[in-house]
Amino acid sequence: MNFASDNTAGAHPAIMAAIAKANDGRVMPYGNDEGTGHAKDLLSHVFEKEAHVFFVPTGTAANGLALSALVPGYGAVVCHETAHINEHEGSGPALFTGGAKLLGLPGDDGKIDPTDVARTIAHGRGDPHYAPVFAASITQLTERGTAYRPDHIAAIAEACREDGVRLHMDGARFANALVGLNCSAADMTWKAGVDVVSFGATKNGALALEAVVIFDADLARDFHYRQKRAGMVLSKMRLMTAQMAAYLADDLWLENARRANAMARRLADGLAVIDGIDVTQAVDGNEVFPLIPAATVARLTDAGVAFYDRGQAPDGRHRVRLVSAFCTTAQDVDRFLEIAGNG
Amino acid sequence: MNFASDNTAGAHPAIMAAIAKANDGRVMPYGNDEGTGHAKDLLSHVFEKEAHVFFVPTGTAANGLALSALVPGYGAVVCHETAHINEHEGSGPALFTGGAKLLGLPGDDGKIDPTDVARTIAHGRGDPHYAPVFAASITQLTERGTAYRPDHIAAIAEACREDGVRLHMDGARFANALVGLNCSAADMTWKAGVDVVSFGATKNGALALEAVVIFDADLARDFHYRQKRAGMVLSKMRLMTAQMAAYLADDLWLENARRANAMARRLADGLAVIDGIDVTQAVDGNEVFPLIPAATVARLTDAGVAFYDRGQAPDGRHRVRLVSAFCTTAQDVDRFLEIAGNG
Amino acid sequence: MNFASDNTAGAHPAIMAAIAKANDGRVMPYGNDEGTGHAKDLLSHVFEKEAHVFFVPTGTAANGLALSALVPGYGAVVCHETAHINEHEGSGPALFTGGAKLLGLPGDDGKIDPTDVARTIAHGRGDPHYAPVFAASITQLTERGTAYRPDHIAAIAEACREDGVRLHMDGARFANALVGLNCSAADMTWKAGVDVVSFGATKNGALALEAVVIFDADLARDFHYRQKRAGMVLSKMRLMTAQMAAYLADDLWLENARRANAMARRLADGLAVIDGIDVTQAVDGNEVFPLIPAATVARLTDAGVAFYDRGQAPDGRHRVRLVSAFCTTAQDVDRFLEIAGNG
Amino acid sequence: MNFASDNTAGAHPAIMAAIAKANDGRVMPYGNDEGTGHAKDLLSHVFEKEAHVFFVPTGTAANGLALSALVPGYGAVVCHETAHINEHEGSGPALFTGGAKLLGLPGDDGKIDPTDVARTIAHGRGDPHYAPVFAASITQLTERGTAYRPDHIAAIAEACREDGVRLHMDGARFANALVGLNCSAADMTWKAGVDVVSFGATKNGALALEAVVIFDADLARDFHYRQKRAGMVLSKMRLMTAQMAAYLADDLWLENARRANAMARRLADGLAVIDGIDVTQAVDGNEVFPLIPAATVARLTDAGVAFYDRGQAPDGRHRVRLVSAFCTTAQDVDRFLEIAGNG
Repeated sequence: MNFASDNTAGAHPAIMAAIAKANDGRVMPYGNDEGTGHAKDLLSHVFEKEAHVFFVPTGTAANGLALSALVPGYGAVVCHETAHINEHEGSGPALFTGGAKLLGLPGDDGKIDPTDVARTIAHGRGDPHYAPVFAASITQLTERGTAYRPDHIAAIAEACREDGVRLHMDGARFANALVGLNCSAADMTWKAGVDVVSFGATKNGALALEAVVIFDADLARDFHYRQKRAGMVLSKMRLMTAQMAAYLADDLWLENARRANAMARRLADGLAVIDGIDVTQAVDGNEVFPLIPAATVARLTDAGVAFYDRGQAPDGRHRVRLVSAFCTTAQDVDRFLEIAGNG
Repeated sequence: MNFASDNTAGAHPAIMAAIAKANDGRVMPYGNDEGTGHAKDLLSHVFEKEAHVFFVPTGTAANGLALSALVPGYGAVVCHETAHINEHEGSGPALFTGGAKLLGLPGDDGKIDPTDVARTIAHGRGDPHYAPVFAASITQLTERGTAYRPDHIAAIAEACREDGVRLHMDGARFANALVGLNCSAADMTWKAGVDVVSFGATKNGALALEAVVIFDADLARDFHYRQKRAGMVLSKMRLMTAQMAAYLADDLWLENARRANAMARRLADGLAVIDGIDVTQAVDGNEVFPLIPAATVARLTDAGVAFYDRGQAPDGRHRVRLVSAFCTTAQDVDRFLEIAGNG
Repeated sequence: MNFASDNTAGAHPAIMAAIAKANDGRVMPYGNDEGTGHAKDLLSHVFEKEAHVFFVPTGTAANGLALSALVPGYGAVVCHETAHINEHEGSGPALFTGGAKLLGLPGDDGKIDPTDVARTIAHGRGDPHYAPVFAASITQLTERGTAYRPDHIAAIAEACREDGVRLHMDGARFANALVGLNCSAADMTWKAGVDVVSFGATKNGALALEAVVIFDADLARDFHYRQKRAGMVLSKMRLMTAQMAAYLADDLWLENARRANAMARRLADGLAVIDGIDVTQAVDGNEVFPLIPAATVARLTDAGVAFYDRGQAPDGRHRVRLVSAFCTTAQDVDRFLEIAGNG
Repeated sequence: MNFASDNTAGAHPAIMAAIAKANDGRVMPYGNDEGTGHAKDLLSHVFEKEAHVFFVPTGTAANGLALSALVPGYGAVVCHETAHINEHEGSGPALFTGGAKLLGLPGDDGKIDPTDVARTIAHGRGDPHYAPVFAASITQLTERGTAYRPDHIAAIAEACREDGVRLHMDGARFANALVGLNCSAADMTWKAGVDVVSFGATKNGALALEAVVIFDADLARDFHYRQKRAGMVLSKMRLMTAQMAAYLADDLWLENARRANAMARRLADGLAVIDGIDVTQAVDGNEVFPLIPAATVARLTDAGVAFYDRGQAPDGRHRVRLVSAFCTTAQDVDRFLEIAGNG
């Protein structure tokens, strides 16, 4: 039983089948083939807008390249202090942007506040002692498992607009947020003012696939140079495009996310009624953040359940992260609850 | 019929089957699983030496990361002026190294000469107006389809050694060179003084797989930080390790290379007897570089044969590059020769 | 009357005279002259240890280059959240280091705590999702005008040592801290575990001069390449070395710092007895941080007094920074106090 | 007697006097003072066009920062293979640009040919395997002591324009070229299509002063961030502005260059009539490149004459570079000729 991460799952069978099928025959490399164009079109369709799309194998690559199109090396990026780009990608964003500074803000529920964003943009603006903010970056789902609502996103975009600051969304769990919010991909992105999305698929049933989705042709113009230079253009691009076509076909991506989210919901609901356990965050997607007594943690670990234990809270309980995946079953959840509740 | 590149082929069926098989079940991400350790061990076995191994999806990534472990941003790399790192990776090596300078040398058959290497290393050494050489990089096969013999490699390594200069091999077509030379992987690398190898598999039957193979633990120590920062650590690492295990199993990699090389040999031999066509380079692997009359080029193109035409030579004939792959058949070759010879 | 910064002063007359004198005659460029060797020796003498010395014209250059010798692009630097490198050099440190991450810690009096340093170093160490800490950097004087005592520095060095983390001191106001602490340059640096010092002179009577002082030959070996590459090797190096020789001659540097510190002391003492004004920090050097009523701020500004007003505190008073220089006079201070007290 | 370089001279007395004079009194730092505005205006006057001006202490800094405003890290710069940026600044340009590739072209007299520039720009353009050219850079004087005529510059600019490629001039010896060509600064730069100039003063009588002169407001907009980040904004900016004001006052800069050029002319004329010596390049400024017999080289060296000996030509004579400065006297030249001719 594995609640450590959604990336401990393999690919969805339909995606694996698509890769195998795409493997046949000779195809021009580096994306100069029909399949690539087709896969890109599918994303434009999803976003209800012509999008400029680039496929990369990891989220760190997607985020770093996306930011590099928005921010020069002498600039800065506003994000939540817990953002993946700030806390879990080493100094990757600096590599891709040529040294841009990340300005991590505190904020409830893993979200940044539009007022804080505006103040950070204004701070020292124009004075070269301060790296000027060129972009804000939000994570959807956040690192606390919560989802930004479109109006919240729009308010951040509004705080950015006056100074020409661009808005990036790290959508590593884009689909989970989307079905949680029950809105359209357009509502959650460009209609709310997002300029560039790291559209994650790996955590939601793909094998190794993220797409950088750019809504502004100017930002996209030189992106292929950045991508190639970073070693991020696969020669056998069909590996990527086959995944994406299958991911989007028949709403597989939404279906996968709905399943994962439902399992997280089931898990959270079950935990809520166990004595001594508290779920600390809204469950907007497929992540649950409970406080769990040490004895229960030990019991789960002994039973071979995998999850991340982020250490003790002041009250002695453990801060635990539980992540469901498209392939998590109700039996998995119920068994987890049984062990957890059986104190 | 496709002689444009070996990367227009899909993956070998055995490799595709291995990916599908590895897809089952939950596995810890980022290479923290048993399969990764196993795949790395296989490469140590191939090289007859404990190697430090890192899997990445592209050759540009392998080369850039490999060089970044050898050369600081204020340093320089000696290579052939036609080297892939110098001519076909944009400014990728500079991204990964933080700005190291590439010093491209001329040289027959796409190879650098040890004397030239020594002179370049010595030029201005110690004077900060000159970026000091920290590494030499050789391409195996070269961009002219030729292979460095182990004694040539050893002579370059010898030219490097006195000044502590390291030797990198861009082995995008490692297997093709190896079977062409009929020597061991050890002979062609560390026994000849190579410190780091970009061990290519994609062009020889894998789907998206290169390995950076480091023979010196000191050079490898911080490599995982570099790789992660560059967005080059796949979360579902099993995609990579399954490919490598299948690639090396039962000498599939050598078998694939032997087939591709044999087809290039058949092609070169056939071209040599066609009036008006000359093969300009030794065929040490799976690449053939003929001069072909314009009318013949047109006839081939009209017949739907794909290949790279690099423009006219002074005598009016076209410089053509023909590359065979593991799946190229004798029928493909014979059909090509038939069209070419039927002037 | 100018309390805005010590860098609003010109150079001390003795230093200006030395520059003029050094201007005569032909001298080999780029530091390949006798004067440069002599000036470097003087610093070794000051530090009572053979030091490797490099002259640059700005503090940002000194800090950036110093850090680049300690930290690779994939690494991190621990510092106080208010450190000049973190708040007032744009993304300069990332330029010089190739993207290293700055980890800003809170801490009383502008100082970082050894326990916090140790915890930050340990956090995620070895996991490539986290940039590994390679250096800690402390500012002397801190951005709050306080000085680290040698035992505090030693405790930070101790927290660093086990993991091979290096210690950098941004000594933009090195002399002011030194005379405030009444210890030796050796006590305040290498004897306490400091590896590299940005030895500032500009703010204390030089015209444009900082020295990077490195105590470890290994760290210094390639520094001249870094310095040259960054455009920081003046061809007419005599401009730098003449300043340094005059700065250190007859303890001019200590004398300058004593005068500036005495004026800050006089200012702080005078402010302390003015109703409604509070000095919020220990005055360890030449900076005073009072809270001043808005009306008083206005009165000072109207009188043409220059200083930095950093906005309102919660109680409505203004956070003011006052900096004395080597040329600040008792009359300047007394006049300031007269205006401030005359409410 | 020193013909090694023009940078072995000190500053012109009038410039030194101006620095001393500017040293008095308190002045706002970082260029936020009246003097800086004045010095910038003087340059606009020189160029007969509103220019955006930034003062830095070295030529490597001026070139690196100038290129960084023109070329992103994924781009390339066309220059002569002997250009200072390509051969004598380590990997400095890559540091400032974030890794841009330098494409060094051969060309007579140290000059690049417009046709070669056009071909290099076109090569692989749009294909991300090739770093796209964003700028061409020419050196004035060239590294062979020759000067580009305005019509040559205009032809290069023309080759650049269609693809939006920008033109940079490394004017380390701007004044020497200008008086040699007997044209206006406008003719030699923006009227011929130059976008950005590194306007050198150090080699022509200043102490440490180069100006980046930008003719396009868009290119200049963020330059102060780049400059500050690179540690290139002196706090006591008066050091720079005083030099520039004095340099331009009463045409001192042109006068200095005329003297230096006249001495180079005298030297070249004298060498031309000495048996066994040949001057190999047109003397357009203050540099002379003779071939000198080994015995003569030894005689000069023994007499204490300083110059650069760049090794033996195929005929056994030595390739020598002789540079005159503003303070080189006719006696110096005549004495040199006497020793050289006295074989």
